[in-house]
Amino acid sequence: MNDHIEEPYLLTPGPLTTSRATKAAMLRDWGSWDDDFNQVTADIRTQLLAMAEAPSDEYACVPMQGSGTFAVESALACATDPSGKVLVLMNGAYGKRAAQLLATMGRAYTTLDKGDYRPPQADEVAARLQQDPAITSVFLVHCETSSGILNPLDAIADVVRTQGKTLIVDAMSSFGGIPISLAQTPIDVLVSSANKCIEGVPGFGFVIIRQALLEAGKGRAHSLSLDLHAQWEYMERTGQWRFTPPTHTVVAFQAALAQHREEGGVPGRCARYTRNRDALVKGMRALGFSTLLEDEWLSPIITTFLSPTDPAFEFHSFYAALKARGFLIYPGKLTEVESFRIGCIGQLGTTVIAQLLNAIQDVLADMDVSLIADLSSPSGSA
Amino acid sequence: MNDHIEEPYLLTPGPLTTSRATKAAMLRDWGSWDDDFNQVTADIRTQLLAMAEAPSDEYACVPMQGSGTFAVESALACATDPSGKVLVLMNGAYGKRAAQLLATMGRAYTTLDKGDYRPPQADEVAARLQQDPAITSVFLVHCETSSGILNPLDAIADVVRTQGKTLIVDAMSSFGGIPISLAQTPIDVLVSSANKCIEGVPGFGFVIIRQALLEAGKGRAHSLSLDLHAQWEYMERTGQWRFTPPTHTVVAFQAALAQHREEGGVPGRCARYTRNRDALVKGMRALGFSTLLEDEWLSPIITTFLSPTDPAFEFHSFYAALKARGFLIYPGKLTEVESFRIGCIGQLGTTVIAQLLNAIQDVLADMDVSLIADLSSPSGSA
Repeated sequence: MNDHIEEPYLLTPGPLTTSRATKAAMLRDWGSWDDDFNQVTADIRTQLLAMAEAPSDEYACVPMQGSGTFAVESALACATDPSGKVLVLMNGAYGKRAAQLLATMGRAYTTLDKGDYRPPQADEVAARLQQDPAITSVFLVHCETSSGILNPLDAIADVVRTQGKTLIVDAMSSFGGIPISLAQTPIDVLVSSANKCIEGVPGFGFVIIRQALLEAGKGRAHSLSLDLHAQWEYMERTGQWRFTPPTHTVVAFQAALAQHREEGGVPGRCARYTRNRDALVKGMRALGFSTLLEDEWLSPIITTFLSPTDPAFEFHSFYAALKARGFLIYPGKLTEVESFRIGCIGQLGTTVIAQLLNAIQDVLADMDVSLIADLSSPSGSA
Repeated sequence: MNDHIEEPYLLTPGPLTTSRATKAAMLRDWGSWDDDFNQVTADIRTQLLAMAEAPSDEYACVPMQGSGTFAVESALACATDPSGKVLVLMNGAYGKRAAQLLATMGRAYTTLDKGDYRPPQADEVAARLQQDPAITSVFLVHCETSSGILNPLDAIADVVRTQGKTLIVDAMSSFGGIPISLAQTPIDVLVSSANKCIEGVPGFGFVIIRQALLEAGKGRAHSLSLDLHAQWEYMERTGQWRFTPPTHTVVAFQAALAQHREEGGVPGRCARYTRNRDALVKGMRALGFSTLLEDEWLSPIITTFLSPTDPAFEFHSFYAALKARGFLIYPGKLTEVESFRIGCIGQLGTTVIAQLLNAIQDVLADMDVSLIADLSSPSGSA
């Protein structure tokens, strides 16, 4: 366990625990304008389009430096018509952030706010689009990690397509871990990042976008650095990123993509994350914890658990005690109830989940927290 | 030499050749919200203020995700008054880029454009400030890597201070390698990045800025992601970056800072880079090459050499042949004359410069390029 204490498992929605091979790919320096590096960039762009099942004559993949929010900002700036209006579907922090992004860049938007964790439903979206014909595009967060909910992407995409609007999906924490096929689901823009289900290290995001939208986005950007069209145009012309890329992060991402393939691509990774989630939820429920969401809405990415009502439970002590045992969990993000979150993604399997459950049981005993049950019927480990 | 061919020396203004210790610091994953990582962030912010000799009660250091341009954009958005006017001093690509940034964000500016490589002079700046009292701030690139020129920072800073204007310095490629003291030189805003003279890997930049300017910048940003005030306010309140930081890059930077101290800080590093530059220039002149600039303007960061007039010389073949021998040089960026550039920064000393000079001599012989001299009087190596 000593090495765990030095480097705890990150049970979070990213940055997450990555493989040694991914990190080892960073033990080399690259010239950011050199052909060798340009080939890495071209390769990851091609692989990401394939992973999204996006026809390469209709879509382009454009990476963007910075955190996932930088990529979302660049995508919204490029793909939303400054004279249009965006319907932002909200049920957590990342829907709210999209609205903030649009407000900052002076684009018109309206919201469908479902509060902390209830899912936006396709019929509600259809009704809003009918009521407000000025709406030109819809923004949806696929997996809203604030609660861990997996929003009903396919049903909403159908409605948006039927009404002839543009669909922009923040698939930050789901892409690569949950199947999404742009050949089957009508998504116009999809945004994700290096340090989520593809299990790279943080430093850039990427946008998979219809080329027609990209071309329409020329000159729309409010920011030079975050100009997605200009990044794409420069990359197509030179093979290079427009401004210095995070070279080591990019090369680590290529290594992470190879491991993703070896695991069986998205289905393989989804299966492991689902096993992690199932073992976690079963084990936590056996300990007496309740999930915020009913099973139907639980993502295999991250799960929110309600904090025990016993006054002996205090999150910061719980966090610190688990950290001392080699596990970093994640604080809650709900406005109405006390909660915490545990992620299922990254380089870890059900063995680690079983160790975590044992650690949680020990910590609760040390804290003298009473729950309804104990770990007498532990979840299986693989 | 085999390992050089696999991983060539990067003789460029960054990304550059970093030490094994710096890269090895990336072999660990970090929770971006965890105290352990917050301590790394706090430590690098403190060390950067100390390196700039910036009084910590007057200045703050705010890191920003992305390339150096992202940091410059965030600094300009925060530190320039939207109702003011910026005088952009230009003698190369990075001065031009600052003007583009201001144009994109709709801030008023005027330029003093000296062409490809002539330095802006303090008396010219003084005259412009007197002619145009609407100017509220001045933007200067310290070392303009387009040509390699080291612009006269101190003299210009004096003039700007005397006239009561704000001075914003792009010290991207000089900070950490050339002494700059904010206690002695009146600079209000200084921008640099991880992957230059401090010899980290690329992924973020940082802004050292007067706190009063930072506070005045609240609400000025045109971009949510690049809002420097909001990044600062959030970091002061929580210890965390506002959006996911490039954790591995940040930790590598802390390792790079430790090596920077061990080398004797800025004076130590400047001495090594100067030795590299002197050996390079002496050796190249002995081979028959001419520098674009006279000695007085040569920076110890990167040097521009005029391409040989012999028609047998062709840059792409020259580049490829040097790459095959383990050295990546940099194309020229001048509009009027054919040139190329060779950097002096990164984890390399005069031994590598001597090897490079030998490789250049070999390549020229292979290409059958005639120059005036040969390497019969080689520069010394250490």
